[in-house]
Amino acid sequence: MLPLRSGGHLRALLARVRGAELWAAPRRASGGLSGAQDSPTAEAGWLRGEVDRFGGVSVRLGALDCLDAATFQRGLHAAVQQWRAEGRAAVWLHVPILQSRLIAAAAALGFGFHHAEAGAATLALWLGPGPSRLPGYATHQVGVAGAVFDESTRKILVVQDRNKLKNMWKFPGGLSEPGEDIGDTAVREVFEETGIQSEFMSLLSIRQQHSHPGAFGKSDMYIICRLKPRSFSIALCPHECLRCEWMDLAQLATAANTTPVTSRAAQLLLYGHREGFEKIDLTMEQFPAVYTGLFYKLYHRELPDSYKTMTGVD
Amino acid sequence: MLPLRSGGHLRALLARVRGAELWAAPRRASGGLSGAQDSPTAEAGWLRGEVDRFGGVSVRLGALDCLDAATFQRGLHAAVQQWRAEGRAAVWLHVPILQSRLIAAAAALGFGFHHAEAGAATLALWLGPGPSRLPGYATHQVGVAGAVFDESTRKILVVQDRNKLKNMWKFPGGLSEPGEDIGDTAVREVFEETGIQSEFMSLLSIRQQHSHPGAFGKSDMYIICRLKPRSFSIALCPHECLRCEWMDLAQLATAANTTPVTSRAAQLLLYGHREGFEKIDLTMEQFPAVYTGLFYKLYHRELPDSYKTMTGVD
Repeated sequence: MLPLRSGGHLRALLARVRGAELWAAPRRASGGLSGAQDSPTAEAGWLRGEVDRFGGVSVRLGALDCLDAATFQRGLHAAVQQWRAEGRAAVWLHVPILQSRLIAAAAALGFGFHHAEAGAATLALWLGPGPSRLPGYATHQVGVAGAVFDESTRKILVVQDRNKLKNMWKFPGGLSEPGEDIGDTAVREVFEETGIQSEFMSLLSIRQQHSHPGAFGKSDMYIICRLKPRSFSIALCPHECLRCEWMDLAQLATAANTTPVTSRAAQLLLYGHREGFEKIDLTMEQFPAVYTGLFYKLYHRELPDSYKTMTGVD
Repeated sequence: MLPLRSGGHLRALLARVRGAELWAAPRRASGGLSGAQDSPTAEAGWLRGEVDRFGGVSVRLGALDCLDAATFQRGLHAAVQQWRAEGRAAVWLHVPILQSRLIAAAAALGFGFHHAEAGAATLALWLGPGPSRLPGYATHQVGVAGAVFDESTRKILVVQDRNKLKNMWKFPGGLSEPGEDIGDTAVREVFEETGIQSEFMSLLSIRQQHSHPGAFGKSDMYIICRLKPRSFSIALCPHECLRCEWMDLAQLATAANTTPVTSRAAQLLLYGHREGFEKIDLTMEQFPAVYTGLFYKLYHRELPDSYKTMTGVD
């Protein structure tokens, strides 16, 4: 993998690390399109690029209501030529949705959408040698299901969907909200669908699936968590579920009307119930994150403390 | 969770399931903007909406080179009023990048970007009651590292990055390409960075981190795989790595100049090497996917065969 796409987790800093400011004064092109309005005030500021540590230039278009697309295109063309001559690797263009009339002009110069959300789009143009090494955007949605298991009765909470897989028993679950931790999604979805309160215990399985129709063609990561019930009285969400019940775990593990992944998780739980949950669990630990100042969560098999304390670094 | 956002994995079908075709003839608005050109040919076809099974309408804008933004806005406004009156839940607008001049007009009617990539953007407008229940777009990037462990010598393959975390030992790795399986990313990244060929054995740990600067503010899933070496002679990628070596596993597990997650994975591997890898591994199994006709991969703790064969369904 080449430099700009490497490093796994910091490479997209390309888009945001602020280095020195680069001023690219757009040269006025001669022979402009007829009817194009040149707006000196707009041209004075709208192509201020910021250079990042990967050698890319980032341009944020502000309020450019008086700038027409033809003038923008001439200015951007000149600026891109200058950035290319200076050896810049790429140009990022951040466009508020109300300035979208400028996007097609950038596209005509080779820019494409990198991503867009709500009120803004980010376009990118690769200037370096060979094919683009710009980092991609998010590739996965994350769905989480909660397997709420009551050890004392050996009952597990299952639902039948209203909208799909009718008559198939599965665990309540749904997609993670942005910024939501895996266990929190499981607990929230279980509560929303069934009214059952629960507590995160462990992560049981992970499924990766590509080209998913339910993910706008992107990939899907589906995670099943083991949860412990904190309440037992079901209050079914009628919008989502046809049925919900506490089912005997062995019955679910051998049921015909369930999905392969639900079956497998039920078998895992049965094994854990009989032999100890440490045989099936991935447990969670929290660490401080270097870059964000937040915390991250790490999941792996339980590790004896004697191993965890081998190192003085953490 | 409410209907449109439920179901975890099929809900975004909203955008693509083709139901009956809906014809929304845009009524010509009176008192149009001065200078707007009405183009009867364009108005005849550009607002053909397709209704999906969730009650949304999907509109694909084709080549509309002769349609000006004001005319588009009047027509879209009338169509949205009609769809709203018919009880449609949402409108999806698929816009080729070269038609981006129409985006601001849609934004003025309340549309926002849902996502965009390369040559097209998808906008959405929620018409149902209450806050939007439209499914979100991909929320996570997935990074994968390969812990290539040579059992016979107890050596593990480690690198020092060129671009960040200098002098910190870590496992080679990087972001998954779209559609790439976790284990394939690990093997590919290890080869690209170090020239070492390897084979996927298991998944060791998963880290979830939010608001990640290297993910354009999205979330990051970082997965470490256990790999078995197939070659041993290092050919360092000079663009990515400062150093690469086969290090004794116990040395890495106690090293000061490494990351917390690398330390933890080294400790896990040491535990597995001493007590058996079944103590630390999540193993992989492949299943046929119902919706895509592809296969998906499922990772969980090793489960005795007697449990896997409990059910006749798979």
